[in-house]
Amino acid sequence: MVQKSNDSRGLHGQVAGATSLCTVGLSGSGLTYCGYDIADLAANASFEEVAFLLQRGELPSQTELAAFKQSLSENRALSPLLCEILERIPKDANPMDVMRTGCSAMGVLAPELSFADQDQHAIRMLAQFPAICCYWYHFSHFGTRIDTGSNADSVGAHFLTLLNQREPSETEIAVMHASLILYAEHEFNASTFSARVAASTLTDIYSAVTGAIGTLRGPLHGGANEAAMALIQSFDTPDAAEAGLLSMLAAKEKIMGFGHAVYRTNDPRNAIIKEWSRKIGEAKNDMKLFDISERCEAVMWREKKLFANADFYHASAYHLLGIPTELFTPIFVMSRVSGWTAHVKEQRSNNRIIRPGAEYIGAEPRTYSPLSTRNR
Amino acid sequence: MVQKSNDSRGLHGQVAGATSLCTVGLSGSGLTYCGYDIADLAANASFEEVAFLLQRGELPSQTELAAFKQSLSENRALSPLLCEILERIPKDANPMDVMRTGCSAMGVLAPELSFADQDQHAIRMLAQFPAICCYWYHFSHFGTRIDTGSNADSVGAHFLTLLNQREPSETEIAVMHASLILYAEHEFNASTFSARVAASTLTDIYSAVTGAIGTLRGPLHGGANEAAMALIQSFDTPDAAEAGLLSMLAAKEKIMGFGHAVYRTNDPRNAIIKEWSRKIGEAKNDMKLFDISERCEAVMWREKKLFANADFYHASAYHLLGIPTELFTPIFVMSRVSGWTAHVKEQRSNNRIIRPGAEYIGAEPRTYSPLSTRNR
Ligand SMILES: CC(C)(COP(=O)(O)OP(=O)(O)OC[C@H]1O[C@@H](n2cnc3c(N)ncnc32)[C@H](O)[C@@H]1OP(=O)(O)O)[C@@H](O)C(=O)NCCC(=O)NCCS
Ligand SMILES: CC(C)(COP(=O)(O)OP(=O)(O)OC[C@H]1O[C@@H](n2cnc3c(N)ncnc32)[C@H](O)[C@@H]1OP(=O)(O)O)[C@@H](O)C(=O)NCCC(=O)NCCS
Repeated sequence: MVQKSNDSRGLHGQVAGATSLCTVGLSGSGLTYCGYDIADLAANASFEEVAFLLQRGELPSQTELAAFKQSLSENRALSPLLCEILERIPKDANPMDVMRTGCSAMGVLAPELSFADQDQHAIRMLAQFPAICCYWYHFSHFGTRIDTGSNADSVGAHFLTLLNQREPSETEIAVMHASLILYAEHEFNASTFSARVAASTLTDIYSAVTGAIGTLRGPLHGGANEAAMALIQSFDTPDAAEAGLLSMLAAKEKIMGFGHAVYRTNDPRNAIIKEWSRKIGEAKNDMKLFDISERCEAVMWREKKLFANADFYHASAYHLLGIPTELFTPIFVMSRVSGWTAHVKEQRSNNRIIRPGAEYIGAEPRTYSPLSTRNR
Repeated sequence: MVQKSNDSRGLHGQVAGATSLCTVGLSGSGLTYCGYDIADLAANASFEEVAFLLQRGELPSQTELAAFKQSLSENRALSPLLCEILERIPKDANPMDVMRTGCSAMGVLAPELSFADQDQHAIRMLAQFPAICCYWYHFSHFGTRIDTGSNADSVGAHFLTLLNQREPSETEIAVMHASLILYAEHEFNASTFSARVAASTLTDIYSAVTGAIGTLRGPLHGGANEAAMALIQSFDTPDAAEAGLLSMLAAKEKIMGFGHAVYRTNDPRNAIIKEWSRKIGEAKNDMKLFDISERCEAVMWREKKLFANADFYHASAYHLLGIPTELFTPIFVMSRVSGWTAHVKEQRSNNRIIRPGAEYIGAEPRTYSPLSTRNR
């Protein structure tokens, strides 16, 4: 696919390095992880298989998958000091700031002392991010110190167990698998690229991931799923959504959950999460958000040829799972950390410091004048 | 100056955006901030004037400088919750991990809720970073809770006051001013570029700076001043240094504090900090480290045409100021935050998400095989 815009800012379409992890927008297939089509993986794999694939380059055997899951569950419990730090963060905090601080704290309390340990630290983050989010959430909102371990068999089930303090249903777990798979990896998106820039100085893996979380937080990136939720919820009916969108577009407002920096005609993740959103709506007998979302999608395409991206139907799907809106982007973190850490490892394996140049548009050369002469 | 290498990794020499803050390696002048030559600023300005220049584009008038310093001192004290978080970080932590976590905690405890407040948050970071470092250092090493305010008239004097718990001398303050000015800004270096990548998603300023701290931490970037210290200290005499370097070079080891991604023949900051290193050595009547450093510089140039960069003589200078080696890179943070925040503001003023492409070097398209068939 070609670049739509000839705007030179943002490095769009410029090659900033090589990767064997992912293709985005190559003809024939919209999105692949290590050669596997996203639709194939989302339909058939578990998130843990996909995380293993990204970490090692191949899908696991049964034995390897069992060992991988075993080490994920052994690493789930947060350290007491990490809990004490999370307990100091107030209820009204932005949960993405909590994730960023929690990840940074993991790295200061139990640092990656040698790159030889990088796999172990990648697993720790995959294992503990759900608990960082849920421990803080329960403590700040309800004053309870939840147990950060669980018997859940997957990252998705572990997260739902900690969040809701009950066992999730099979459907709920299936939606989490699909969602975590869709969000796991996306080539040189902004957060992953920031992780690679950090890694290129040979810093530790927690620094790289902490920076990536802060990057993902922005509304033009991971933050879009929360912004999409706010938008959808602001409408009561599909007709109201249509009218609302038309006036937002007339005012040249950006509509969150639409458009993409690389894809030009559709986001291959959209059809998949849209189906899940429909399924949960049907299961819960509540199609309101889905119907409003579908109208938004039709209007945006008709009016602007803008398509729903991965984030848009995630909003209604997560909402129907009972997940508070402000935890949507943290789930993205729990998933994408599998891709980020794979990119850090890849960057390290063939490293050169990432240090681009800039076009200078500032003042001409000038000479310092003593403070006493500067009167304004 | 031209690119020495034709290695395409790392975006070296590729324009990734525009800036009015800095030029690096343009002919005629090695390094300028907003049009002012680095030598001119280091010889004549205070760090606060330079920070103001980077934040506002012009040097301050007397009134403006007084107001700027006033708001820096008013913002110095750390919040009680931030102190409690820092108290949970052990003594053997990497101080750069402390800075990264402290910055992230500032952002979760008192977030940037609107970009309209960005200047205020930039000032808070400039004001509080010295205390984050020193509060943790004193508490973890000596069990004391230091007062995080001070009457010091500058960031450099404030840092030295908190660190040493006494008023610094005029010379010590002068070295700090020069050092903080030299480190304040450097165009699209890796940490600044990571801050801009983060900012391009329209995330908050603390996320951008937290990521930048993690990026600066790497030994190929800010971490080089500590690595240079370790190197210099490993030699007892200039002759031992020469022999040691020769065998390291023969073993193709990287020598920290030498070379640069943009400069090809010298780093304009080196002559300045070298003079300060000499002056403090003379004042303290201790030229050992300086003499060893000078021999290293001569050998590296003679053998490899590699020149000392900004970090190399910082090592001996900081050491003679009595600063523990592991706090060298945090000082870099206290300074560079003035540049990082200026770049975040500049990125926001003409934003597009930074999202480069990648060359795919991975597996061919393949199809998922059920787990039960995967035996290894
Ligand atoms: C994803 C995104 C940041 C890509 O940015 P980009 O590559 O710079 O966008 P494009 O080059 O495709 O933009 C082309 C035009 O479409 C407009 N546009 C893009 N996405 C839009 C949206 N969601 N709503 C309204 N207009 C949009 C742009 O403003 C631009 O208009 P202009 O030429 O008049 O300035 C952008 O589409 C966006 O902000 N989307 C909303 C946030 C979001 O959902 N992010 C999650 C991505 S997975
Ligand atoms: C700063 C630095 C990362 C720039 O990286 P870069 O742009 O990729 O380096 P160059 O392209 O100039 O390298 C050219 C050659 O010189 C070598 N080289 C560069 N700096 C070197 C050093 N400090 N010691 C030994 N060899 C060095 C490189 O390994 C490379 O050799 P090769 O061609 O055989 O692979 C690099 O010089 C370095 O690692 N320096 C030490 C760390 C440091 O002081 N960083 C602080 C910078 S302010």
